[in-house]
Amino acid sequence: MNKRSVTILGAGLVGSVLAVLLRKRGYEVTIYERRPDMRKEIIGAGRSINLAMSNRGWKALELAGLREDIEAIAIPMPGRFLHQEDGSSAFQSYGKNGEAIYSVSRGELNKKLMDLAENNGVTIHFNQRCTKVDTATNTIYLQEDNETTEIKCDLLFGADGAFSSLRTAMAFNDRTNFSQFYIEAGYKELNIPAGPNGEWLIEKNALHIWPRHNYMMIALPNIDGSFTCTLFFPFEGEPSFESIKTEEEVRTFFNKQFPDAIPLMPTLVEDFMNNPVSSLITTKIFPWRNADKSCLIGDAAHAIVPFYGQGMNAGFEDCSVLEELMEAHGEDWETILSSFEQKRKPNADAVADLALNNFIEMRDKVADPVFLERKKIEKELGRRYAGRFNSVYEMVSFSHTPYAYALHCTKAQDVLLSKIMAEGDFFVNVEKPEFVSQLENWIEEYEALV
Amino acid sequence: MNKRSVTILGAGLVGSVLAVLLRKRGYEVTIYERRPDMRKEIIGAGRSINLAMSNRGWKALELAGLREDIEAIAIPMPGRFLHQEDGSSAFQSYGKNGEAIYSVSRGELNKKLMDLAENNGVTIHFNQRCTKVDTATNTIYLQEDNETTEIKCDLLFGADGAFSSLRTAMAFNDRTNFSQFYIEAGYKELNIPAGPNGEWLIEKNALHIWPRHNYMMIALPNIDGSFTCTLFFPFEGEPSFESIKTEEEVRTFFNKQFPDAIPLMPTLVEDFMNNPVSSLITTKIFPWRNADKSCLIGDAAHAIVPFYGQGMNAGFEDCSVLEELMEAHGEDWETILSSFEQKRKPNADAVADLALNNFIEMRDKVADPVFLERKKIEKELGRRYAGRFNSVYEMVSFSHTPYAYALHCTKAQDVLLSKIMAEGDFFVNVEKPEFVSQLENWIEEYEALV
Repeated sequence: MNKRSVTILGAGLVGSVLAVLLRKRGYEVTIYERRPDMRKEIIGAGRSINLAMSNRGWKALELAGLREDIEAIAIPMPGRFLHQEDGSSAFQSYGKNGEAIYSVSRGELNKKLMDLAENNGVTIHFNQRCTKVDTATNTIYLQEDNETTEIKCDLLFGADGAFSSLRTAMAFNDRTNFSQFYIEAGYKELNIPAGPNGEWLIEKNALHIWPRHNYMMIALPNIDGSFTCTLFFPFEGEPSFESIKTEEEVRTFFNKQFPDAIPLMPTLVEDFMNNPVSSLITTKIFPWRNADKSCLIGDAAHAIVPFYGQGMNAGFEDCSVLEELMEAHGEDWETILSSFEQKRKPNADAVADLALNNFIEMRDKVADPVFLERKKIEKELGRRYAGRFNSVYEMVSFSHTPYAYALHCTKAQDVLLSKIMAEGDFFVNVEKPEFVSQLENWIEEYEALV
Repeated sequence: MNKRSVTILGAGLVGSVLAVLLRKRGYEVTIYERRPDMRKEIIGAGRSINLAMSNRGWKALELAGLREDIEAIAIPMPGRFLHQEDGSSAFQSYGKNGEAIYSVSRGELNKKLMDLAENNGVTIHFNQRCTKVDTATNTIYLQEDNETTEIKCDLLFGADGAFSSLRTAMAFNDRTNFSQFYIEAGYKELNIPAGPNGEWLIEKNALHIWPRHNYMMIALPNIDGSFTCTLFFPFEGEPSFESIKTEEEVRTFFNKQFPDAIPLMPTLVEDFMNNPVSSLITTKIFPWRNADKSCLIGDAAHAIVPFYGQGMNAGFEDCSVLEELMEAHGEDWETILSSFEQKRKPNADAVADLALNNFIEMRDKVADPVFLERKKIEKELGRRYAGRFNSVYEMVSFSHTPYAYALHCTKAQDVLLSKIMAEGDFFVNVEKPEFVSQLENWIEEYEALV
């Protein structure tokens, strides 16, 4: 049986990794990418949120053979560094064993992945805008300048992101469910440059958050000593992108709300005035495929908001799962793609919800001492009841536990932790045998629920 | 100030009524309709579910001056006629005062509305497929045969149904939320012809239902003595459109499940084999408009499933509300359209939910004696506590109470009725003073909730 030839829309992170995995199995792979080659041309910045690579992402990079290369340009962030409203600060570790998520530049990662794909024999065509897909005939229409080329595909993957042209076409098919949902906040990229000697001016190994209830700013470290900041801010209301418009308003607002950041941001007003405001979309679709002919993957199948740092990680996990299915089912693409959408759809829906919920957590709850106490207790529970309790955050970021299971545990963990916290100071109580025996009961109740 | 000229996509029910209301206020109105003129050409049948006109629909027809004309071709249905699995039957009236919904042929109604629109000075262009809308420039692209015409619109309405081209365009705009959701059941049109002398072979003045738990057949009367039947049936599973395929399977299935209908359906097997299976979509979008330039209305803004008979009624209520807003705000279309979407969106969402819930009620619950008892009690409560209690069904079908309020009352009515029914035979209990005083308390509790 001849290997099918594979066409991929999009040479982004997921498209490139997918291409490498397919080449390693001997498929001929061609990618069509809308943008110019970012390795040759400077791409306009101002819309990028730094990536936070965690376990699911690393796994796919390992399969692709790129883990070491990326580790060299990744900065570990073992916790959140909170910049509170009252000027105080606090560090909150993510894992109980110092586990970290890793700040990675999207551009650098993408360039390396493209190199790797080409080195593995993948052909990438740039400046090819896919204007239409005919799912019935599996034909893509690619526009370059004013010419349109028509290509009939054998096996087609849409790795073309949140506004995927394959997904747009699939959404017109009968009995295809689809939704797109924008949150009421948008974001703007800002910047903290490196110090005079290229040093990081705030803690390098942390994800910085300025939580301000219904909005927040975050900052992730870059290897050149700078930080990429992102302001997540309502579009309308008070304050909002609508209400803060003039240079004077920007200065006044930041002075009041982010006084510790202002001295670090010399180009703040310029950046604020020049950089665009982008919106944040969640998309869901089902089915993800058309028979054994075409399939969505990554953001094209499930675009999510960035608040759990799981967009790329979820897309890379799609690749790992597809790799396992190719291993199990050989050339039987009907079975591979049908298992793929069945396995991944519930997890994609779950991570979409986890990400939406985490916006509330990051912008609002992390400012609350009760919440910080809860996070400490969660880690202690994880140590004491290893294998029986693991916090949802750790499941999502530091394990390969299905997202759907992590989401499912959220409510039971809320119940457990509120029982524990109602008893007062956990770290005192936990020295008392009667509390420990009560705790054992609660943990058993928790286990029965999850 | 010059009156704006109005372009409407779609000469269906809502587009035609809207056109009449705009003409009556002196606007120049042009409609572009995708299909040929149904008054001149025979349109392929097989996909139409008869309409059930209720109070909201009549109101708009009254405003348009068409009530009497339509009453002449409408058949009142004051209740449901249930054909149970065991061969028994029952009549269940919809209202406490004999109120009826009205069976109307979609085609006949649409033809009369087109005539009325043209008589009022509306221009309708047929065979004009809108292939694209540019919302930024308010330009529509109309295709007839192989030629495309570009028209820049002043004020544009999309009354072009569940697969609206204006809605498709709007869904690509930033920060536009959109969802489309198909239920797991589809439908097929079937037929009960008139008797030898043009008489109705089953009760004329009723909506007939054969409830069979996860599927059902309904039949609505036509003025020629026939009934249009619709089988709502799962796409997959057992039984389903997938599992019942051969003529023999159709015969066996109908003989077993609908034995009383079989003798009335001489062309059953032929109809089943020839008529298409159609899917059932719910769509939601927001915003509904682009500034004061374009706006969605009817199914284009909110396509719903047909189980409450409210699709056309909701679209016609859109027209009545728009009429009130034109009356209140003159030529201020920014205010008219902004108020329109704010007023109508919560009600459109509510009727979508009511319609989805009513599928469960019609196919499943109406077969249950407990449910029939509940319906009787609801009417008695409505009589005894006039102005304080009105069943959700009556609010939806026989009043102009906002759909959102009717949906909001659903849960409180469920609580009230389950309390009452837990006490046993209502029509015996209600003769006892102590029960009546208890009932008064419950009604007060209900009123506090709604």
